[in-house]
Amino acid sequence: MPHFAAKISYDGTEFSGWQRQPHSRTVQQVFQEALEVLSPGGKSQLFAAGRTDAGVHAKAQVVSFDMKRLLSERRLLPALNASLPQSVRVVGTANVWENFNAQYAAKWREYRFFLWNAPFIYPHLSRYVWWIPGKWNFERAEEACSYLKGTHDFKAFCRATDLRKETVRTLFHVGLRHKGPLIELSVRGDGFLTNMVRIMLGSLDQVARGNKNPTWIDWLLNGDVSRKEAGRTAPPQGLFFWGAHYEPSPEWFGEGEATPPDFIF
Amino acid sequence: MPHFAAKISYDGTEFSGWQRQPHSRTVQQVFQEALEVLSPGGKSQLFAAGRTDAGVHAKAQVVSFDMKRLLSERRLLPALNASLPQSVRVVGTANVWENFNAQYAAKWREYRFFLWNAPFIYPHLSRYVWWIPGKWNFERAEEACSYLKGTHDFKAFCRATDLRKETVRTLFHVGLRHKGPLIELSVRGDGFLTNMVRIMLGSLDQVARGNKNPTWIDWLLNGDVSRKEAGRTAPPQGLFFWGAHYEPSPEWFGEGEATPPDFIF
Repeated sequence: MPHFAAKISYDGTEFSGWQRQPHSRTVQQVFQEALEVLSPGGKSQLFAAGRTDAGVHAKAQVVSFDMKRLLSERRLLPALNASLPQSVRVVGTANVWENFNAQYAAKWREYRFFLWNAPFIYPHLSRYVWWIPGKWNFERAEEACSYLKGTHDFKAFCRATDLRKETVRTLFHVGLRHKGPLIELSVRGDGFLTNMVRIMLGSLDQVARGNKNPTWIDWLLNGDVSRKEAGRTAPPQGLFFWGAHYEPSPEWFGEGEATPPDFIF
Repeated sequence: MPHFAAKISYDGTEFSGWQRQPHSRTVQQVFQEALEVLSPGGKSQLFAAGRTDAGVHAKAQVVSFDMKRLLSERRLLPALNASLPQSVRVVGTANVWENFNAQYAAKWREYRFFLWNAPFIYPHLSRYVWWIPGKWNFERAEEACSYLKGTHDFKAFCRATDLRKETVRTLFHVGLRHKGPLIELSVRGDGFLTNMVRIMLGSLDQVARGNKNPTWIDWLLNGDVSRKEAGRTAPPQGLFFWGAHYEPSPEWFGEGEATPPDFIF
């Protein structure tokens, strides 16, 4: 069967996350329904670079799948979009080699989290940021961030009910920047634990508000610290699955060639 | 009575425009209802810098009003927001001098219109841009734009059923820029006719698609040209009332002091 990959952007507000589950509307479910329309009866496994939680968005989730029909990447993009709801859009497509797997082959995944720190908020932004009206010390958060890069045991940053045996992950890049009241955290890593980025934000928030020192983040990362020691889980609407990287890279039609702007920043 | 001004940001998607009208939900109506909650029985006139059409957004519409209660600008902002729907947010407030009138005193008003030119679109943007998937020649549109600046008879750029006697307006600034697939037109002028910016976009679109020459815009502006000669009215969702300027300026709390980023660009 022909092999495909797609980049999917979605507004997570009305979805119970990525992964298919009974009695809930998930992005995986609506995407599989669109595949079924395009190629009836050709059920194949769908792999995704990142499992996003309920309410979390994606700029470019990457998925891979097989389909009975052979379509060019140029025709696949509008064909899939014709069957998807407006809140889920295919933004890139590629014909890929056999055994390309969006989940297992990703060299890194990137998440971005947006905070809005002002006494007011624009309605056009409120679905996509965590709004913090009070004082938030960017420099303290920046210092705290510096401890996150590298290989650490992120056990304290994993949802307690979902603890895996292996909680060591490597973050290749951690960046915090701001433009007026908009603050963006971007993180690239080899993998992410459940709620990891949101617990990072909840912990950075404790530092930025002055409740904890920046070195507290370092302490959370070193040794056998439990989930309850870290900050709270930040709300999902500020979080975007931003993208994933493969080597070699599929030849993308759509997002890959059009060089989209960082539309929030 | 104490005098106030406010900057209001709204998502125009579910509103029948700014101006109050029977049997329709308008932004003016919900704002007056919020004022009534804050200061019962104290009905006063509400003046606005720009009358936006149905579906058009505002980043910072400026309004002025009197209220029986005296509140600091710092307390007025959250107090109004407590009574407004999420789609309408007060983003700035000011105590102003007597006779300050947001409608008549504006030195200039600014609108911005966003186009998205790519085969794909992100769901997070689709409420706020005019999506054009096909070829769109930016350089031709830029050349056509150069004719718009200055004082002209914009009769061809005014909704035919709403033609006023005086159709001469001055545009102090006209700018077209792009960042990846996102294209932004910004215009500052002393005043705008009904649908003026949207008809400008519909006409620039004719040039960018190659159906008309850039000099056609110059011809539309010179002399007695009727509405039907110009391009179609572009859809409302790409248009934002961006702001208005006053001299002297009110002392704003909120948007005025926080230097917000241009959140789409």
